[in-house]
Amino acid sequence: MIFDNIPFVSQHLKPTLIDKINQKTKPLGALGALEKIALNIGLIQNTLSPKLTKPSMLVFAGDHGIVHEGVSAYPQAVTAQMVINFLEGGAAINVFAEQHHFDLQIVDSGVNYDFDLSEPLTHAKIAHGTKNFLHEPAMTKVQCEQALTRGVEIAQKTLSKKSNVIGFGEMGIGNTSSASCLMSVLCGFPIAECVGRGTGLDEVTLSNKIGLLDQAVKRHNVKDDVPLTVLTTFGGFEIAMMVGAMLASAEAKAVLLIDGFIATSALLVAAKIQPNILAYCIFTHCSDEAGHEKMLQHLDVKPLLNLGLCLGEGTGAVLAYPLIESAVNFLNQMASFGSAGVSEKLNAD
Amino acid sequence: MIFDNIPFVSQHLKPTLIDKINQKTKPLGALGALEKIALNIGLIQNTLSPKLTKPSMLVFAGDHGIVHEGVSAYPQAVTAQMVINFLEGGAAINVFAEQHHFDLQIVDSGVNYDFDLSEPLTHAKIAHGTKNFLHEPAMTKVQCEQALTRGVEIAQKTLSKKSNVIGFGEMGIGNTSSASCLMSVLCGFPIAECVGRGTGLDEVTLSNKIGLLDQAVKRHNVKDDVPLTVLTTFGGFEIAMMVGAMLASAEAKAVLLIDGFIATSALLVAAKIQPNILAYCIFTHCSDEAGHEKMLQHLDVKPLLNLGLCLGEGTGAVLAYPLIESAVNFLNQMASFGSAGVSEKLNAD
Repeated sequence: MIFDNIPFVSQHLKPTLIDKINQKTKPLGALGALEKIALNIGLIQNTLSPKLTKPSMLVFAGDHGIVHEGVSAYPQAVTAQMVINFLEGGAAINVFAEQHHFDLQIVDSGVNYDFDLSEPLTHAKIAHGTKNFLHEPAMTKVQCEQALTRGVEIAQKTLSKKSNVIGFGEMGIGNTSSASCLMSVLCGFPIAECVGRGTGLDEVTLSNKIGLLDQAVKRHNVKDDVPLTVLTTFGGFEIAMMVGAMLASAEAKAVLLIDGFIATSALLVAAKIQPNILAYCIFTHCSDEAGHEKMLQHLDVKPLLNLGLCLGEGTGAVLAYPLIESAVNFLNQMASFGSAGVSEKLNAD
Repeated sequence: MIFDNIPFVSQHLKPTLIDKINQKTKPLGALGALEKIALNIGLIQNTLSPKLTKPSMLVFAGDHGIVHEGVSAYPQAVTAQMVINFLEGGAAINVFAEQHHFDLQIVDSGVNYDFDLSEPLTHAKIAHGTKNFLHEPAMTKVQCEQALTRGVEIAQKTLSKKSNVIGFGEMGIGNTSSASCLMSVLCGFPIAECVGRGTGLDEVTLSNKIGLLDQAVKRHNVKDDVPLTVLTTFGGFEIAMMVGAMLASAEAKAVLLIDGFIATSALLVAAKIQPNILAYCIFTHCSDEAGHEKMLQHLDVKPLLNLGLCLGEGTGAVLAYPLIESAVNFLNQMASFGSAGVSEKLNAD
């Protein structure tokens, strides 16, 4: 599978966009991070008047063999239970997606449960959870390619409905373990710096989790320059599907809303495959999960929100969306010094 | 003028609210700052199901005699020009207020310009700008009381229209100078730690501003325990009116959205008069204006956003509002572990 079609974001309009932003009736730079977002979206869409249409949130769910090692504070059954909660509208992501008019799509990437086929779920199950990567690769190479392909197809279907801004969320008991291993290998950080409490481990189980993941990373000894092998080794299916969906979304020049620790680990894989993807991303928040801040620093990006969230599901991405809309709105709607007859700075140098 | 009617926020429902939050289908604390906001608003409204109705933004505008000392990067005429820009819908606050369905009200507290009385402006002018507080108090005691009273009346009128969440914004070339002096006296910090670049001073004029404000603070030598004297001394009319409006809003048990450096300086005055007000406040963002972070630390509060904004107008408060709505929404709409049939944490201690 080759992803070589993500175009460079043209910098052609950059000076004109910056000038448009600077001519708005406000002191230079006074809208802070929103000015950077406005510029980025203008460049992505290659226009002075960008427009966000039909925001979508894709939530990928999958289970993880590694949970049998006791790396999570919640039982594996919670993945399926939460998927049902999503379908019934009771989860945080439902509430926030409704508030901000996101089209919310729940994807079974590999949950260890047989959902009724009549459920309003995107049925894309690769298997009933990954293998335990402490002992063997989380998935086969074929499964990884299947997951990527389904992720691509799911994103393309969403994009074909005129959505040009797509968020990526996930649910999967145990998936912080996969994300920590991906981070350790792909960023080159010691595993201890990549592991956090997930859904709420105590000191003892956290220490146990670090030891187990350290073993796993050492045992497989995969190299950071073969990202698909890293992904195949540590999983999970929801992460692999997210990687495919992210790559396809950037290929279509959509704006990608990157959520928390797990979603950013998927992006690490995607960016190793195709670094051009980064110019399409907005980093929406810094998760409270230990490791995420360092992951964002590694990518040299500053997220919009820092609210101590650590829920996943794409919640941070949806919560940040109104700020992204505000960035586009001020660019399109604010008056300029000239049009409003407002005096400019004294002795402007 | 006495403000002794701001009720304590009852803590009666606190355990029940915390339990309701903890029973939502998410790991404990996983919604971070939103959980604190949900708790606070529940307590303010004394209910397990709070509701935000008709959000309003009051933007107070006034001019400042201190500008004759060259403390601002923009000419004084910009205050009036920006008021006209507000009325024509071209400013940042117009764009964001429209996006989030705020009722936006612009108040002439003391702009040095005669607006046409037919303008859709709340005409509450005390005078054509304050006096230059380098040489004399910014206003008289009578003017200060007038400003407070008009602020109270303006807020009460807004509250009478069933608004229970009110933001406070401002416009006034030179008003960071007033805010810096209020901060220095009321928090007991050296003036140099309270002064920033405002709308964009260079090094030389910043240094000049610090020197001038240091002189002013030393000359008047007012005490922090007489907050109305401090306010009378340094102004401005828009700040005094904001103080009155904030006190009246808390008296009516509204949720107060505190914006940036100037609005927080008004709150410093209000909280010296009536400390109970603090329990009604949500601190919406940390401004890029030097001093604001320290001011927030002095109040021992953590703001929602940190986006490098330094625009005033109430923009930070309106931009943060969707997060506040999200806090209320998750509390009201998310399923509980019990109702959704989701398993709780293993070995929960």
